[in-house]
Amino acid sequence: MAKHDSQLDILFTALGDPTRREILTRLARGPATVSELHNAHDGSKDMALPSFMGHLKKLEEAGLITSEKRGRVRSCRLNPGAFSPVQSWLETQRTLWSERLDRFDDYVTNLMKERKNGTGPKD
Amino acid sequence: MAKHDSQLDILFTALGDPTRREILTRLARGPATVSELHNAHDGSKDMALPSFMGHLKKLEEAGLITSEKRGRVRSCRLNPGAFSPVQSWLETQRTLWSERLDRFDDYVTNLMKERKNGTGPKD
Repeated sequence: MAKHDSQLDILFTALGDPTRREILTRLARGPATVSELHNAHDGSKDMALPSFMGHLKKLEEAGLITSEKRGRVRSCRLNPGAFSPVQSWLETQRTLWSERLDRFDDYVTNLMKERKNGTGPKD
Repeated sequence: MAKHDSQLDILFTALGDPTRREILTRLARGPATVSELHNAHDGSKDMALPSFMGHLKKLEEAGLITSEKRGRVRSCRLNPGAFSPVQSWLETQRTLWSERLDRFDDYVTNLMKERKNGTGPKD
């Protein structure tokens, strides 16, 4: 549980930055080199390559992307399976909330029946 | 776009902490007071109330929960609609990836046809 939680910490934190999300969106379309990603970055003029590579490193540490170097060129690709823990967590929240709404629905239905039968509180 | 991005930053960052996710999971079952949430917290002995309330504040700033004070008791409730931007973003990634797989599938199918017809490269 703790291990899984820690993975969610790393994933959500990695996703909490616009540059990193932009990189993921680009890589969802296909692999790209570090230079291509940096040049395509909206704020490439405002962000030096070392800072940009820091974002790539965080994505790689989170398991969201992988990279490999051939000669002097490093290429990156998306690891789409890495989103699964995030999606599972959101799905769990949705299920809990839905169960709660079902219970509330039952409660209101019973209240209406009681009122109709004159067993509940009057208006 | 920038506004939406900034909202995603705040949401993902708020979700990147196990205490905050634990609070959300508890609130998905129904509203609770700050004391109830703090007492139910796994590490309540290790986390003083002011630190715990700091987490509640971050969740409230992200729009994930709302709170109201009656007398000396503050109650919190989940705002499940606040997950929507996160879910939309993940869905966009899934769609982009799926489109890419479709293109790859077409590519492989064409390659196989070319080989079969003897128009492609030989083994």
